[in-house]
Amino acid sequence: MSAHPVLIGGEWRAANASGQFQVENPATGETLPDAFPISTWADCDAALDAATDAAEALRRTSPDAIARFLTRFAERIEERAAELVDVAHLETALARKPRLADVELPRTTGQLRQGAAAAIEGSWALPTIDTTLGIRSMLAPIGPVWVFGPNNFPFAFNSVSGGDFVAAIAAGNPVIAKANSSHPNTTRVLGEEAFGAVRDSGLHPATVQLLYRTGHDDGARAVSDPRTGATGYTGSRGAGLTLKAAADAAGKPIYLELSSVNPLLILPGALAERREALAGELVGSCLMGTGQFCTSPSLVVLFAGDETETFLDEMRQRLDVTPPTPLLSRAVARSLTSAVSELRDAGAEAVTGGAAIEGPGYRHANTLLRVSGAQFLTEPHRLQTEAFGNVSLAVIVRDEQEALAVLAQLEGNLTGCIYSDTRGSDDALYARLEPPLRQRVGRLLNDKMPTGVAVSPAMNHGGPYPSTGHPGFTAVGIPAALRRFGALYSYDNVRPSRLPALLRDENPGGRAWRLVDGAWTRSDVTAAVAR
Amino acid sequence: MSAHPVLIGGEWRAANASGQFQVENPATGETLPDAFPISTWADCDAALDAATDAAEALRRTSPDAIARFLTRFAERIEERAAELVDVAHLETALARKPRLADVELPRTTGQLRQGAAAAIEGSWALPTIDTTLGIRSMLAPIGPVWVFGPNNFPFAFNSVSGGDFVAAIAAGNPVIAKANSSHPNTTRVLGEEAFGAVRDSGLHPATVQLLYRTGHDDGARAVSDPRTGATGYTGSRGAGLTLKAAADAAGKPIYLELSSVNPLLILPGALAERREALAGELVGSCLMGTGQFCTSPSLVVLFAGDETETFLDEMRQRLDVTPPTPLLSRAVARSLTSAVSELRDAGAEAVTGGAAIEGPGYRHANTLLRVSGAQFLTEPHRLQTEAFGNVSLAVIVRDEQEALAVLAQLEGNLTGCIYSDTRGSDDALYARLEPPLRQRVGRLLNDKMPTGVAVSPAMNHGGPYPSTGHPGFTAVGIPAALRRFGALYSYDNVRPSRLPALLRDENPGGRAWRLVDGAWTRSDVTAAVAR
Repeated sequence: MSAHPVLIGGEWRAANASGQFQVENPATGETLPDAFPISTWADCDAALDAATDAAEALRRTSPDAIARFLTRFAERIEERAAELVDVAHLETALARKPRLADVELPRTTGQLRQGAAAAIEGSWALPTIDTTLGIRSMLAPIGPVWVFGPNNFPFAFNSVSGGDFVAAIAAGNPVIAKANSSHPNTTRVLGEEAFGAVRDSGLHPATVQLLYRTGHDDGARAVSDPRTGATGYTGSRGAGLTLKAAADAAGKPIYLELSSVNPLLILPGALAERREALAGELVGSCLMGTGQFCTSPSLVVLFAGDETETFLDEMRQRLDVTPPTPLLSRAVARSLTSAVSELRDAGAEAVTGGAAIEGPGYRHANTLLRVSGAQFLTEPHRLQTEAFGNVSLAVIVRDEQEALAVLAQLEGNLTGCIYSDTRGSDDALYARLEPPLRQRVGRLLNDKMPTGVAVSPAMNHGGPYPSTGHPGFTAVGIPAALRRFGALYSYDNVRPSRLPALLRDENPGGRAWRLVDGAWTRSDVTAAVAR
Repeated sequence: MSAHPVLIGGEWRAANASGQFQVENPATGETLPDAFPISTWADCDAALDAATDAAEALRRTSPDAIARFLTRFAERIEERAAELVDVAHLETALARKPRLADVELPRTTGQLRQGAAAAIEGSWALPTIDTTLGIRSMLAPIGPVWVFGPNNFPFAFNSVSGGDFVAAIAAGNPVIAKANSSHPNTTRVLGEEAFGAVRDSGLHPATVQLLYRTGHDDGARAVSDPRTGATGYTGSRGAGLTLKAAADAAGKPIYLELSSVNPLLILPGALAERREALAGELVGSCLMGTGQFCTSPSLVVLFAGDETETFLDEMRQRLDVTPPTPLLSRAVARSLTSAVSELRDAGAEAVTGGAAIEGPGYRHANTLLRVSGAQFLTEPHRLQTEAFGNVSLAVIVRDEQEALAVLAQLEGNLTGCIYSDTRGSDDALYARLEPPLRQRVGRLLNDKMPTGVAVSPAMNHGGPYPSTGHPGFTAVGIPAALRRFGALYSYDNVRPSRLPALLRDENPGGRAWRLVDGAWTRSDVTAAVAR
């Protein structure tokens, strides 16, 4: 069987491959028919050369053309939606409806259109004008961007259609997509539509390139290559840290989303007030996407007492009556079983579940573990092992002091939630627990599950290490996500005709917000202001 | 002789020291009388514990109190200006006037006051409000910041009074200053005034702490310690990369300013138009501060021809008639001699100078080296060796193609300049040379020397690696420099009374620009807009 071609330099061509791979349908364990190449460095090298040319071309391309590409790509995805949903369902076992067809696909095309709007508008670049000193600055494209996509969102975080892809392109950079190896066929279809949109919109043909898999050494070489501008990576901590080490050593920016247990605190008043509703809400969030969300609430802090015991029992009942849905792959299943072992070895006990389910396919019992706060404090590191899947750990603390001690041991996370009552009885406790939690998470929620990650300008899908590599950046949210792929360009005494359009006195189209002499405005710099 | 005490936890106390050191007056080579301690890890550890407390306290401190500290510190510096100038002159040999008293000291107090204004105003935090989705975000203090200051600006970049210090404090973080070992007594005096201002303004006593020197291993341990929020470093590339590796491995942000040769291109039309004036301007910039500016124009690209030969001769004459001023230290002198050797070994020839001058004190002949573009292209890496001091290298290119080839070999730099004529004869050449230069520098200048680094919101004192560690950040310029010391905090569905003041519906004082539903405004969120 011959492997699918890769997309390099505006051409679907046979890979320079060291081998090929196939994937399984995780619902059945059956091997799917398509074969995909494992590219050697020669493919990476050719893609980097072509991306260098594309980056040059994109610097001379109008934001409107880039926006047309993103919009056209969204349309093409919609035109091929039924096929995409089928292909992604086969490769990921995620439900066709509502998940893939009604939630993730519209989110993906929505992101593409938001990216198009941001590219045209231009405010993402923080254009800044100092008329007194004659200095102007903005963020400008950083250069070719490698995107490594995760396994859990085959559309919305796909390397060739997802959040990092949109952010990099909208900021004016070409993307070299490295497919997630667990859904290559989905990525192929998206890649075909991306490339079709590139042709439709007349962008440089190497604006989008696609490889399916590389050797680990070649990945590290790619992110640290002199031609690379930056990298976006979402995936496992181990592989991410290998790439990070390589990129850091070469001084190349790399934005990572690595792992998170997303601590969720339910204060006693909230439990007394609405215990049953909370059990339903929490179990729903824990099982969403079979628990395979970056923001799945995997570590729940509860205060010891009868109410908590009842709550755990209610959770158990709900978990037990919900049929476990498949995991994304054999690798995810293996890793989940191993994480559960690690948690149990460190002292966690099963309230329910705790083991893989015999095939066909890859499933794990819906699982709730529990551990005392005292035990957590003896093994805080191991008891934060990320169990990626339908497994959560309840940490039962004795009192406020123990809760504070547990919070002090938390690693950096994407999210943290506090549920409190509506009558104010939890308010004093909230005020004492919030500060240590706040400092350890990127997004703090009240009375809301963390599994929804809205594409909002105020979103932070980021957080302190090791949830990401830098606490100042977000992977979701426009315009902030675009800024990761910009380099700061200052122009000092540069003649007006030589300035980029966004920094000239006349604000092109009057669309961009610009910081002119300390005030944000969409107005032109007037002769009265400019020297 | 007993060494000066260090400032830890709000107390000047004897260091836990492994030894002590003294410095020389670089103008004479005489050892100065004061002795300073080399701290062991115990001092770093105690400072980190105290800084952790201070960081907690600062999170609850109003921006107005932080601003009062910065303003009071500026006043105290002014009150002790004469002594500061004398002490810094003794340790650095920089001229009392105009340099230290009339330029650097006012710049330093100006920065402190700009930082105070930015802290009160609040716009630096990019407060962002999405009323539709109920999500709000801002940059919040990142935690204790280590500042490692350079040798060349004893006030304006001093670890306990300079740009990184101001940015970290204005963003709400405590600073642990690691003095530059070449001007400890200047740092001591500044530290005394900083601590006095801490007391005057009632901030947590560990808001400012000061160590004079640590072992290299302890520096690496400090920047990667779990209690550390971030680090600002300005200094040599070697020491900086050691710290970077340690911080990167721990996922701790580190902002570095490492080295830069600041390429400057003089196009043929400009040379024909104003050759003599340019020679004066360039020599003035090259010798400013004995060439010990981060942005000193150390690599000058010229086009081969008679005009260029005359220009080089005019530069030579000016260099020869200007008495060489002292270098900052024995170490700088040694490093400069070694860099000149490296450049000559790689093919550069001396137009004038090229050797150290016999003592007393540390001086080097004002030096101009030259090399052909062809030779540069055979040793592009070695010929970009930073010669920190009064040494510049002219690269004489044959034609445009060779110029482009030279530009393509440039490493990342803080600045790049192009001089072109005023009649338009250089315009076509400018258009072809600008893009490759633009991508390799943080700040692009026209017809202006790079040695002035104004504190402007549009300044970029940063650039691609290896000039810094990340091309998106600037060390100079307010508010942008503050953002390096912020972590992104998103609040999702958080109850209004629990939001930080800057994110509530009412804009506190109406001072901060906030991005509300996609538009920058200083207005409150009105009931009509908020859900």
